[in-house]
Amino acid sequence: MEKIRIGIVGYGNLGKGVELAARQCSDMEVVGVFTRRSPESLSTVFENTPVYHTDDALNMQNDIDVMILCGGSATDLPRQTPYFAKYFNTVDSFDTHAKIPEYFASVNASASESKHVSIISVGWDPGLFSINRLYSQSIIPNGQTYTFWGKGVSQGHSDAIRRISGVVDARQYTVPVEEAVEAVRMGDQPQLTTRQKHTRLCYVVAENGADKERIEREIVTMPNYFADYDTTVNFISMEEMERDHKALPHGGFVIRSGVTGKNQETKQIIEFSLKLGSNPEFTSSVLVAYARGAYKMYRQGSFGAKTVFDVPPASISPLTDEEIRKELL
Amino acid sequence: MEKIRIGIVGYGNLGKGVELAARQCSDMEVVGVFTRRSPESLSTVFENTPVYHTDDALNMQNDIDVMILCGGSATDLPRQTPYFAKYFNTVDSFDTHAKIPEYFASVNASASESKHVSIISVGWDPGLFSINRLYSQSIIPNGQTYTFWGKGVSQGHSDAIRRISGVVDARQYTVPVEEAVEAVRMGDQPQLTTRQKHTRLCYVVAENGADKERIEREIVTMPNYFADYDTTVNFISMEEMERDHKALPHGGFVIRSGVTGKNQETKQIIEFSLKLGSNPEFTSSVLVAYARGAYKMYRQGSFGAKTVFDVPPASISPLTDEEIRKELL
Repeated sequence: MEKIRIGIVGYGNLGKGVELAARQCSDMEVVGVFTRRSPESLSTVFENTPVYHTDDALNMQNDIDVMILCGGSATDLPRQTPYFAKYFNTVDSFDTHAKIPEYFASVNASASESKHVSIISVGWDPGLFSINRLYSQSIIPNGQTYTFWGKGVSQGHSDAIRRISGVVDARQYTVPVEEAVEAVRMGDQPQLTTRQKHTRLCYVVAENGADKERIEREIVTMPNYFADYDTTVNFISMEEMERDHKALPHGGFVIRSGVTGKNQETKQIIEFSLKLGSNPEFTSSVLVAYARGAYKMYRQGSFGAKTVFDVPPASISPLTDEEIRKELL
Repeated sequence: MEKIRIGIVGYGNLGKGVELAARQCSDMEVVGVFTRRSPESLSTVFENTPVYHTDDALNMQNDIDVMILCGGSATDLPRQTPYFAKYFNTVDSFDTHAKIPEYFASVNASASESKHVSIISVGWDPGLFSINRLYSQSIIPNGQTYTFWGKGVSQGHSDAIRRISGVVDARQYTVPVEEAVEAVRMGDQPQLTTRQKHTRLCYVVAENGADKERIEREIVTMPNYFADYDTTVNFISMEEMERDHKALPHGGFVIRSGVTGKNQETKQIIEFSLKLGSNPEFTSSVLVAYARGAYKMYRQGSFGAKTVFDVPPASISPLTDEEIRKELL
């Protein structure tokens, strides 16, 4: 079998996850990791994974079927994706929601002109959660969709706490409110405020002698991040942080609660949920599956920027159409 | 806005559900119900829905964008779908699993030649459950997928009981075993026998003076239907049957339990579940959404037989690509 040849651009948690996830797929091969650092300085999960400087990527257009772009949404991807889409099929996890239309347009211009496929905003939210919002609302138009996140680590909120003076380290868990989830599952279609949907649970390591009352006050009153939530702050030692909060679990629920029937008398509930031991390992598993989708759509000549909404489910499977009809339908 | 013009072939629970579901969609219009009975004899959910004889359908090729075929899988669809696919785009809920490859081939021959789109085996299983099996196994290749059905009424099992001598009416509920579902959700990847996954709960109205012990024995020992399950039989009155068992609820779970990481040390759980007040009303809501998909794929010139695996999620939405990227991604 001819393997799909993958390049990995950027090597943080997500890039490592892609290296791991591709190894699970017998139809995939990692050609190399591309880094802006010195390639010698980088140690990969698997010893035999080649490392190149990002500048060398353009010489490898014939060796790579899909580039998986593992940079951040704030500064890396808006610059990198339109560039790489000129030379490669790409997949990325761009998640700055408000900027998606603008980002899509810019990537689409590159990929369409170069006749490549670029699937943007892949992962679980945006990604699988988005697909479930779309399917469930299209099927049950009369209803409401609820998205709950957690219990899981929010990197953005953890970083926000770390920027407070006197904080050495911090981990913030987003926690869905159990009663709200249950009310939605019962088909009640409640109107829920931000505060009623999630709470925020923080573990903070403070500097010796730091004013913990001030730190707590700065956290719980922080606009956008915490002010609209019920927030609990726990101060712990660095040892406890290392021992109990190293993993990056996450997950959540998309629940569509709607009605059918002549008098809207029949409740119908659709729920999709994730319970993830590692957020980056899962997100990168989704990226790798969609790299297969990008490759298949490229072979079919369907060029330009795409989202998960545009990719037929069959495209992300390693099986043939005959196999999936026989085994999975 | 130009509406998508729907025809409904067959008018049992599913056909009625399609009439109801299309009414929820502002971009849909039911042109008519087609029946083999005398059209005057049929009374529709909405008074103003036109009723025609099936023989008149061929004169209405220019009036109908998609025919939704609501007949049964045993004898209606294998005959009807290849026929209607010569003249119309079609959507159906064919669910005889073992015969899907043969059915697909026969429908594909018709639809390809006539340049129409026929989406087969649409509903929730086969249908949404199939999509979730495909997505989750493609994303987490190292794992196991579990499908549980219920709690809900199985028409096939209810019918099987009704065929026993001395039985006036019967309703059979398929019930997933709570402990099995919980073990799967914990990521244990248990090996489960048929008996360990579901129980069967039967409500039976017996004739006056019938031998209830014999009826119960005939039920619980019935091969294929009950012999491999723990089955409970409750005898009830016709009044209780009418009062408590008129609805056709159903639902179930598709759970993918898998692992990622260098040493397969990270548990990842993906779950999709349905809690349906009415199985036929939900199934027909899925059919109507995929009628939209058939229409869009037809306009794009993507002819032939399709399954839900081939239909991009965006195709079943009434929203534009720009709207879904902005609102749902």
